[in-house]
Amino acid sequence: MGKRYKITMQYDGTPFVGFQVQPNGKTIQGELQRALSIMTKGQKVFVHGSGRTDAGVHALGQVAHLDYPGEIRSEALMKALNSMTDDAIQIYQVEEVEKYFHARFHVLKKRYIYRVSLAPFISPFERNYVLHHPYRTNINRIQQALPVLLGEHNFKSFCSTKTDKTEFDRILYRAEATLSEDGKSLTFTFEGNGFLYNMVRILVGTLLQIGDGLRPVENMVYLLEAQDRQQAGPTAPACGLYLEHVSYMDLAQRIQKSEAAGFIE
Amino acid sequence: MGKRYKITMQYDGTPFVGFQVQPNGKTIQGELQRALSIMTKGQKVFVHGSGRTDAGVHALGQVAHLDYPGEIRSEALMKALNSMTDDAIQIYQVEEVEKYFHARFHVLKKRYIYRVSLAPFISPFERNYVLHHPYRTNINRIQQALPVLLGEHNFKSFCSTKTDKTEFDRILYRAEATLSEDGKSLTFTFEGNGFLYNMVRILVGTLLQIGDGLRPVENMVYLLEAQDRQQAGPTAPACGLYLEHVSYMDLAQRIQKSEAAGFIE
Repeated sequence: MGKRYKITMQYDGTPFVGFQVQPNGKTIQGELQRALSIMTKGQKVFVHGSGRTDAGVHALGQVAHLDYPGEIRSEALMKALNSMTDDAIQIYQVEEVEKYFHARFHVLKKRYIYRVSLAPFISPFERNYVLHHPYRTNINRIQQALPVLLGEHNFKSFCSTKTDKTEFDRILYRAEATLSEDGKSLTFTFEGNGFLYNMVRILVGTLLQIGDGLRPVENMVYLLEAQDRQQAGPTAPACGLYLEHVSYMDLAQRIQKSEAAGFIE
Repeated sequence: MGKRYKITMQYDGTPFVGFQVQPNGKTIQGELQRALSIMTKGQKVFVHGSGRTDAGVHALGQVAHLDYPGEIRSEALMKALNSMTDDAIQIYQVEEVEKYFHARFHVLKKRYIYRVSLAPFISPFERNYVLHHPYRTNINRIQQALPVLLGEHNFKSFCSTKTDKTEFDRILYRAEATLSEDGKSLTFTFEGNGFLYNMVRILVGTLLQIGDGLRPVENMVYLLEAQDRQQAGPTAPACGLYLEHVSYMDLAQRIQKSEAAGFIE
């Protein structure tokens, strides 16, 4: 019957059309499933991610689970996957877990960071890894705008209209902007119980407009009430976004949630 | 008749098949010449680099010259080239120069660096920018082997057999290996009056074998005398190599050299 494994990975999102398998283009899920198919002599092994990431979005701590048909040690699975997938993917932890672990269903919190360079020029070596924003951005204005986002809110203004979701309430535990010592780069950190489609990128696009003086600091209060994507700022580009960490419910919570839902996938 | 411009650029070599125009694949020279052709309504403007770099090799300070047919300010030329070429290329200096400046013919020194990570793992974000060498390398052995390379030598042992050169004497002014404070990365620096095909990469491949204990420290003395590529170590991969700086003769030297050669290109 095989065992369930939790895998934790980082990836450079640049060469991928996203996490999720798509008919055209290379994906992280596709790379992993292709390797697993070869390892299992043609069996179809599904890789469940904690969630999708879009084309060009990076990960420092994306999590997935899979049920491996047959016997394999965690370390051997890690080595095989790393050697058989694109070098832009690196799995750095593989753990055997019980069937009451589901990489998406049991997420407790996710943390994203978004990197912005405020320097007049960025090098070609950074072009796929930060948003270049060489404008007079007032970091104090951004920091003043952030706290109202904390807690539970309807974030519909910060959700792409392309979503299939109908429920927009999410809880943010952290919403921070930190300037580097040299003042040249700005890192946003958002931690929450879940994120809507493009939510971090729209938050960043809006916050930068606040920092640039194009919107009032109080605008966030209005936007949370408006529940209208048209009112918020632009979607910041994918290249600055990193899924940094996914944390999970403990075993008791996982069993409770799975049994309440009558659900073991 | 137009003016001559010296341009200085950095590039991420990853997406290119090399500096020099080739029938298949994107090149740095090709990107620049394509932009110039559009800017001049179809005229052919040749871009003379200080030398070629191979596929995947990076530059922090590559230099080229070109003769622009027509009037253009240096800053406008820089902006136009940056906006019309691949984002992996960034021109950061454009200067008007006299006709006694030739980007290849008047080179005084070139400096390359080669970056090696000794860490057990490297992240996918570094994969195209360092050589990953997670072995017990003795940096002292490398540092002992370097000084014999300084000065004028026949470097034929460190030249790819694919070269079209027949003269292998070159002068090295610097040959250094520096360990980072955390001991996890090693940077080689080589400065010389000219470099043979793959010379830095073969030197690094050989020096790492010395550091790993696969060759004696004294091996460099033997290799300089042997003048035989087969005796030296492997060619280290392109991704760790950066053309860092090119310096030029002063005007009097340039005029003297050009007139002695009967040569203004």
